Amino acid sequence: MNTAVKGRLTGVGTGPGDPELLTLKAVRALNEADVVAFFCKKGSGGNGRAIVDAHIRPGTIEMPLVYPVTVETHKDDTGYKEPIAAFFDRSAEDIAAHLDEGRNVAVLSEGDPLFYGSYMHLHVRLAHRYGTEVIAGVTAMSGCWSTAGLPLVQGDDILSILPGTLPEEKLVERLVDTDAAVIMKVGRNLPKIRRALQAVNKLSGALYVERGTMANGTAQRLEERDEAPAPYFSLVLVPGWKTRP
Amino acid sequence: MNTAVKGRLTGVGTGPGDPELLTLKAVRALNEADVVAFFCKKGSGGNGRAIVDAHIRPGTIEMPLVYPVTVETHKDDTGYKEPIAAFFDRSAEDIAAHLDEGRNVAVLSEGDPLFYGSYMHLHVRLAHRYGTEVIAGVTAMSGCWSTAGLPLVQGDDILSILPGTLPEEKLVERLVDTDAAVIMKVGRNLPKIRRALQAVNKLSGALYVERGTMANGTAQRLEERDEAPAPYFSLVLVPGWKTRP
Repeated sequence: MNTAVKGRLTGVGTGPGDPELLTLKAVRALNEADVVAFFCKKGSGGNGRAIVDAHIRPGTIEMPLVYPVTVETHKDDTGYKEPIAAFFDRSAEDIAAHLDEGRNVAVLSEGDPLFYGSYMHLHVRLAHRYGTEVIAGVTAMSGCWSTAGLPLVQGDDILSILPGTLPEEKLVERLVDTDAAVIMKVGRNLPKIRRALQAVNKLSGALYVERGTMANGTAQRLEERDEAPAPYFSLVLVPGWKTRP
Repeated sequence: MNTAVKGRLTGVGTGPGDPELLTLKAVRALNEADVVAFFCKKGSGGNGRAIVDAHIRPGTIEMPLVYPVTVETHKDDTGYKEPIAAFFDRSAEDIAAHLDEGRNVAVLSEGDPLFYGSYMHLHVRLAHRYGTEVIAGVTAMSGCWSTAGLPLVQGDDILSILPGTLPEEKLVERLVDTDAAVIMKVGRNLPKIRRALQAVNKLSGALYVERGTMANGTAQRLEERDEAPAPYFSLVLVPGWKTRP
């Protein structure tokens, strides 16, 4: 191996879950990778890794990057920023060691790498030091409205992508000022989201989607969803579509 | 051909332009299609059709759907709604004739079919009458920020997708209330968009992207872009990323 030539870093969007929603470019990048890195929780193999399973060549070095803390907390929570920053620093240096040895490293990112993906934390630490390419992927929200067959936005519609963690009055303000919305991080915020949509008269068109493009995914009208806690990665879709030509 | 069995309608997201950003599922749908329909302007072969060129089987029936009027006008413009509605009605019936004969019809949609795509106008006219599947695609905006290597949103960021056609004071209001923004339909709205971003102190981070994932695409800081009119399908990206763990 020629150590004078550095390896290439590739952020690979794996799409929302259905392995067929991988792009041809992602498949090629996996075929050209010497090392495949992926984020996962302790005790889990990682959703991104499962999606690309059919495309990992024998002999590929696998590099799980195990989150030290849950990511299901607010970004300003005490005790979150420091360990997660140290984790991204360390992960970037582990990847850099492979790149310095001339190995091409593909980092998996569920959905699209630069759209709420952990990959971006490695990108900002490494892209100025190594040849880098980012391969766009199908986002989780696209997967969800496609599976549900729900036209989301047309023409001059405004679309707002909102975290369900916003305070109720902020959610209401943002929902008034938009045509369509995608509300992420639903989880235990479900009752609050429902109240906010009711307040702005947008509850009746809203769709609740759980595990979007997974084999066991479901979609139902939010009005008909019970009050049981939702999984963190469920979504609420509010279509902007009102009149049609 | 068994005319008792109706054909299947598939909305196929072709991604933003790079043929390698097609999904495996889109390629399979093209292989299984008897008819491939695609929107195009008079005198043009259609961008979607060009993207999938390598995957059209010999013998496939090709069905160009030629827009009767420019789509580059505001949806409420006089003289737009009626001819475009009649065009979608007629296109849907032409497709239905194939489906009734048992032929599978794939309708190409640049980017993602239910995200600002013309396919949705056929979907709402046909999906209740025929077996239908929508195959999500990589959006133009994902293609643009990936090519530019620009992390757009992380954590609890709010993202607003705004049409550049909004009046200046509305643009300012929406830009104040968001962390990140994607401004579409730039065209002759470029000077107004620049003034609005300047007013909310978000101009310095904004990126101007032209022909995103096309071979001749360019990205530059909006501050450095001259005042010449922009192509209609250019984008402005305003990243929400401010602090990082």
